[in-house]
Amino acid sequence: MAAAPLPRSIALSRRSAVEPFIVMDVMEHAARIEAGGGHVIHLEVGQPAAPAPTVARRAAAAALEAGQVGYTAALGIPALRARIARHYGEIHGVAVDPERVVVTHGSSGGFVLAFLALFEPGDRVAIAAPGYPPYRHVLHALGCEPVLIETRAEDRHALTPERLLEAHRKAPLKGVLVASPANPTGTMMDRAALTALHACARDLNLAFISDEIYHGLDYAFPAVSAVEIGEDVTVINSFSKYFCMTGWRVGWMVVPPGVSRTMERLQQNLSISVPTLSQIAADAAFEGRAEMDLVKATYVENRRILTEGLPQAGLKRFLPADGAFYLYADVSEFTDDSAAFARRMLDAAHVATTPGVDFDPFHGHQFLRISYAGSAPDMAEAVARIGAFLKRG
Amino acid sequence: MAAAPLPRSIALSRRSAVEPFIVMDVMEHAARIEAGGGHVIHLEVGQPAAPAPTVARRAAAAALEAGQVGYTAALGIPALRARIARHYGEIHGVAVDPERVVVTHGSSGGFVLAFLALFEPGDRVAIAAPGYPPYRHVLHALGCEPVLIETRAEDRHALTPERLLEAHRKAPLKGVLVASPANPTGTMMDRAALTALHACARDLNLAFISDEIYHGLDYAFPAVSAVEIGEDVTVINSFSKYFCMTGWRVGWMVVPPGVSRTMERLQQNLSISVPTLSQIAADAAFEGRAEMDLVKATYVENRRILTEGLPQAGLKRFLPADGAFYLYADVSEFTDDSAAFARRMLDAAHVATTPGVDFDPFHGHQFLRISYAGSAPDMAEAVARIGAFLKRG
Repeated sequence: MAAAPLPRSIALSRRSAVEPFIVMDVMEHAARIEAGGGHVIHLEVGQPAAPAPTVARRAAAAALEAGQVGYTAALGIPALRARIARHYGEIHGVAVDPERVVVTHGSSGGFVLAFLALFEPGDRVAIAAPGYPPYRHVLHALGCEPVLIETRAEDRHALTPERLLEAHRKAPLKGVLVASPANPTGTMMDRAALTALHACARDLNLAFISDEIYHGLDYAFPAVSAVEIGEDVTVINSFSKYFCMTGWRVGWMVVPPGVSRTMERLQQNLSISVPTLSQIAADAAFEGRAEMDLVKATYVENRRILTEGLPQAGLKRFLPADGAFYLYADVSEFTDDSAAFARRMLDAAHVATTPGVDFDPFHGHQFLRISYAGSAPDMAEAVARIGAFLKRG
Repeated sequence: MAAAPLPRSIALSRRSAVEPFIVMDVMEHAARIEAGGGHVIHLEVGQPAAPAPTVARRAAAAALEAGQVGYTAALGIPALRARIARHYGEIHGVAVDPERVVVTHGSSGGFVLAFLALFEPGDRVAIAAPGYPPYRHVLHALGCEPVLIETRAEDRHALTPERLLEAHRKAPLKGVLVASPANPTGTMMDRAALTALHACARDLNLAFISDEIYHGLDYAFPAVSAVEIGEDVTVINSFSKYFCMTGWRVGWMVVPPGVSRTMERLQQNLSISVPTLSQIAADAAFEGRAEMDLVKATYVENRRILTEGLPQAGLKRFLPADGAFYLYADVSEFTDDSAAFARRMLDAAHVATTPGVDFDPFHGHQFLRISYAGSAPDMAEAVARIGAFLKRG
């Protein structure tokens, strides 16, 4: 989009100056290739191709049929909050008081509420690099200082107590945000790693935020929720990934006891309530887990095709593909500019991927994120095209 | 909700300490009366009883049927942005470039984007008292200073250039936010008033934000949009009121030329995109205006019942009911504590209203907001009950 000149009296704030996503350029370029008749394999998108559970769509359709779709309580429809709480008993064997559940506008809405409630302007919050770009952009927009901590292969690309302490000693932190399974790496923290990091954060009196949006999509071992480890955690989750409900924009938080009232007032003011049809569909979605497990089985097969095929195609180094639907590939033997490399692969092989620079200012220029949320035939075709592309050099 | 003690490591931020809405207590108390078998007339709610236009609900149902409901572009579905732009030609006779349209999570999402993009922390922003409470609460949460300006009856309870200049001379302002029709007063600014205020804001180099959520619900004279007056304005609107789509959480902004790119990046990071089904329904809603005009006709009748009946019932003083579906009644001859008065009227007459203290720290203790978004029989019954209540004294 060409930037028009601003009217004289308009000055945009410094805090609104957030970086664009490089992947948007990839997507626009892919669209141009498709408009010209090219057939692009999309490995850049972070959303499931499958629809929401049938029961969820039926529940929304019935509510639509019934007539008025009014505001809900700011914290969410009580039945949905109770259903989410019960989910923790079913999956994680831990009792969660429904009062601690806050329904949000996707995980995005959860981050805004959490950052506003837990941090003052100027507060330093530790996040892993590589990591999901909105972590640092939203922290910046809300006046906080994202403290990027470089992760290492030997730590399964997760934050560790040692690195957290090191950052805290440079200048005191106020919080730490972890994600397992993580985006873009697809790596997971096991129970010992999560427990150790949480203990360290508690010792330092840091707010502990756990992004669990990719829970349910775990392959290497069962994902551990931070709610299993302590009550002093803020968990952020969503119906977007496992339940295939991206465009519905509905997620949830589990907050520490006593925090819901503050979240309620913030949400009343910032958004009144979360879309009603989406909440009704989300409540029903839990009964559609068998259907979603079939979708998950397709990711398992896609993951197998890629982890077996890519090394033979010449893409030999990637992080452990523990969960989510991402594989983070080290392309440093081919390039030191992953954005240009992704562009060349898109032009020459019509395979779209996301350059790591969106996720990691330190080493992102040597990595590509490959999403396997698509179809198995697309994965096989991608392996073949990438192989041919790398052979041509 | 009882506040549980906070875990040791949880300290909530000062910026998250926003005031609760007093009307929530009214609503909870009304629910208790109803649970005990009482029949409450609800004049406290600010949402239409009618559903969204039939064409809008059909469009959403068809999209649901079609399968996947994915993310949209951050600025909104292009067809919806174009349709909204066209609306300004149809209603206001002014050409708006679709590039200036940003689809938002209701008007609430628009305020968050506008305040973040236009203001730095510490910036002073003028708003009218009485006014919609989230204006001051969201400004506070985002680090800005809401500057409440007392309005006067002779100014039709709107901000004027004189009062704006006066506030600016005390300490420089960075922006001004107006609403016409206004909540809670129901009053409107005519073209001359809006033009004069805009000219003053431009002279002072202030960002000019116009909340037009109640447009379409004008009775005294046609509502004027700020886009008719200048390009250097940020208009915030929503499908919630005229189009009866509260729970869908979809609205829009018209921003100055050159500002969309910043809004796009903010929205990508803060919320990815607006609910897809709601956007599809909103696009179709414009074809349902005939149906919505029938709903508006019920407000016209409700307004007639109240403006004719309330003076006979003893409630003689209220502001000009120009638009929206609110009547702001001066109850100072009965009480100096409108919250207690509203509570007594709810207990004794089972009529729920909103005390003015939610909207106005200066004079709200002498006012009640009465919503006429309900049914005509309810309005007639309310007049009878209020009459009997005031006679009993």
